[in-house]
Amino acid sequence: MERERYFEDYVEGESRQSFGRTITEADIVIHAGHSGDFFPHHMDAEWCATQPFGQRIAHGTMTFAIGIGLTATEINPRAFTYGYERLRFPAPVHAGDTIRTTVTIGALSDDPKRPAYGRVTEICETTNQKGQTVMYCEHILLAERREAAR
Amino acid sequence: MERERYFEDYVEGESRQSFGRTITEADIVIHAGHSGDFFPHHMDAEWCATQPFGQRIAHGTMTFAIGIGLTATEINPRAFTYGYERLRFPAPVHAGDTIRTTVTIGALSDDPKRPAYGRVTEICETTNQKGQTVMYCEHILLAERREAAR
Amino acid sequence: MERERYFEDYVEGESRQSFGRTITEADIVIHAGHSGDFFPHHMDAEWCATQPFGQRIAHGTMTFAIGIGLTATEINPRAFTYGYERLRFPAPVHAGDTIRTTVTIGALSDDPKRPAYGRVTEICETTNQKGQTVMYCEHILLAERREAAR
Amino acid sequence: MERERYFEDYVEGESRQSFGRTITEADIVIHAGHSGDFFPHHMDAEWCATQPFGQRIAHGTMTFAIGIGLTATEINPRAFTYGYERLRFPAPVHAGDTIRTTVTIGALSDDPKRPAYGRVTEICETTNQKGQTVMYCEHILLAERREAAR
Amino acid sequence: MERERYFEDYVEGESRQSFGRTITEADIVIHAGHSGDFFPHHMDAEWCATQPFGQRIAHGTMTFAIGIGLTATEINPRAFTYGYERLRFPAPVHAGDTIRTTVTIGALSDDPKRPAYGRVTEICETTNQKGQTVMYCEHILLAERREAAR
Amino acid sequence: MERERYFEDYVEGESRQSFGRTITEADIVIHAGHSGDFFPHHMDAEWCATQPFGQRIAHGTMTFAIGIGLTATEINPRAFTYGYERLRFPAPVHAGDTIRTTVTIGALSDDPKRPAYGRVTEICETTNQKGQTVMYCEHILLAERREAAR
Repeated sequence: MERERYFEDYVEGESRQSFGRTITEADIVIHAGHSGDFFPHHMDAEWCATQPFGQRIAHGTMTFAIGIGLTATEINPRAFTYGYERLRFPAPVHAGDTIRTTVTIGALSDDPKRPAYGRVTEICETTNQKGQTVMYCEHILLAERREAAR
Repeated sequence: MERERYFEDYVEGESRQSFGRTITEADIVIHAGHSGDFFPHHMDAEWCATQPFGQRIAHGTMTFAIGIGLTATEINPRAFTYGYERLRFPAPVHAGDTIRTTVTIGALSDDPKRPAYGRVTEICETTNQKGQTVMYCEHILLAERREAAR
Repeated sequence: MERERYFEDYVEGESRQSFGRTITEADIVIHAGHSGDFFPHHMDAEWCATQPFGQRIAHGTMTFAIGIGLTATEINPRAFTYGYERLRFPAPVHAGDTIRTTVTIGALSDDPKRPAYGRVTEICETTNQKGQTVMYCEHILLAERREAAR
Repeated sequence: MERERYFEDYVEGESRQSFGRTITEADIVIHAGHSGDFFPHHMDAEWCATQPFGQRIAHGTMTFAIGIGLTATEINPRAFTYGYERLRFPAPVHAGDTIRTTVTIGALSDDPKRPAYGRVTEICETTNQKGQTVMYCEHILLAERREAAR
Repeated sequence: MERERYFEDYVEGESRQSFGRTITEADIVIHAGHSGDFFPHHMDAEWCATQPFGQRIAHGTMTFAIGIGLTATEINPRAFTYGYERLRFPAPVHAGDTIRTTVTIGALSDDPKRPAYGRVTEICETTNQKGQTVMYCEHILLAERREAAR
Repeated sequence: MERERYFEDYVEGESRQSFGRTITEADIVIHAGHSGDFFPHHMDAEWCATQPFGQRIAHGTMTFAIGIGLTATEINPRAFTYGYERLRFPAPVHAGDTIRTTVTIGALSDDPKRPAYGRVTEICETTNQKGQTVMYCEHILLAERREAAR
């Protein structure tokens, strides 16, 4: 769905939540094959069983790709991604966990170099079925100012 | 390959470069299916042809997953990922581009909360065949201190 | 997105259109592998070049799966699929074609066996970049009646 | 395998049965990624556990694609698909179910618009390991008449 | 299809040919991800362009898997695979090549250790659209003797 | 990683071992779709339960592709694959098994037709978590002679 929003339309504290998605062993296999990262932490159940974490863990890059992908339901033609800050994986994701992502509008600020745009920080927090945060990051958008578009 | 390195073994400025990998239309299709992000920027060639960028662009989450995946050739059992900072996508990736990642050891610093570890910043820069940077981020590792391991 | 709609909320003639999606050679390969149908019509470019249709064609089951998948953006918790009627593939889909699906509310009728539900016919028409219809079907939903829900 | 059959060669009531195939969680993940349908009915084990159906269910489009794909073992160069009628999913498919498809020749009739062809209705019934029907449809073929081919 | 054949039913020189299949860039990407082999010979178009072979080449393990997979149309419940001999890849496979496999019954011999079985050598030869052999191997089957089954 | 080795650098008896990888149901599904081999031995859990082997078994072509893929960590620009001999699958691989491959340098011999190369036999043995050999083959390399390179 397309939903046009100018910088002025973003409201600090506004929040939306994605659907849930159960991460499967198939996802881990597919991500290894997609990224080329076959490290035993993700792929070798026998070795993992000898480690403190006990079982195979999802790649951080996958938790990021799926965690952000879950939020891809709404296109704003007035904004584009500038980057991500403070990407963290506070708890591991295992096959069988169900994750969902909450996006909350954080800081709204000027962009020093681009006066026609404002900077929107979307706080993305992916949690599992126990309520633990498995991924945190700040998605920085640049959104067109309505005044500039006139 | 496993290569054991303590915090003391990291040398600022040291650098390694990955193999190259040509990004294909298949990769974009696979990533859409893996992440669930089917936005027309990645999937609709007709619509893209009407936009300034002209053709389908790879998902940022994919450039990150593959860009980092390219570096996954060497395991250091004395270090683990703390997170990523300043993730940026300065230029788009299109099907047919060939990318590779250079990892350079940046700042080495104390970790305020974990005296047994030091903080290693790996600067990850993914470039395409024209030498343009398509992904930049700082990978923060926590590496065990040799003295602490004694 | 969830959007609750009772039978009484459907309006004949109402219409929505999906995003577009470019079908790729990768999609055909993935569908062959998923369905197990490796017939030369889909897989053998050399043989296809000797046939009237000239080039590999997408599986009908794939055009259906993706054509319907494109409409999966909105969940109505008050309705469920009863089935599909009159599934047709009037024109072939080739790698490189961009398709999108228009869903139009057709007939609204009683369901003889289920008085608490009404029957909604969604006319699904998938077209390519030339405006040709590549898939047509009628999706039959059973939607709860508001009066019955009271 | 190729097996040439003209319209006159089809015998009402003739039947063939496919091999069996166990549907896996991987199939559901692959189909979500292929079709773009990530609805929680298929993807969110936690939510499904709160619903009457209790667990993730395969997409109807997947049961159709695999149910029909199972029959793709024999090519008849004298026939082509006209379409499908009465596609139904009487019982759900879950990961772990084993399905197979029986194809029975139903009605043989004239095609009003194409005198050189006859219309063959193949009744496709996909059943699970408990003998329940999980997919039913009528596949309409147009088969060349031998007399017309002379 | 199942086709029961005892050792005595195999005839030296008998031959069957598979359908053709066009190898795609997607197949190479999928095989890299499945096998974990991301060597630049298969993945880096830029580097390949500097090499004598000029372009990306399919993995030998893929040519084997698909070349043999093409022959998997007929199950003989009286035989099982003992192994493969003399596996060779005389010419490279590139994306866009169309391959097919011819299986010819070669030597029929006693199995020294298993008197109830005979040893069947199937000569598997995979060729491309130019008639070049891209894969050669000898598939050794052990087939039950009819006399032993009495 | 690239590691240049001339024929003279290979030492009989030298050995290296790959990381481990747990084979999953997803791998079997992906390999069926990649190779086109959907035989019930790999795909039909119900039928397998009636057979002596009791459960679905991995395709031999997959055990080979992954078994060899596990060793693809080091490129020698002075050698290329000539072929494989004596490929055997002494024990079956099931979903849940963890495999790893040991490569041991076997015979080093002259190549009758190519005086500038020597022939290196790498003995590849893939074992499961119980130490059983699930794949054995001899990988024949042709490695440039240092003297010839002068």
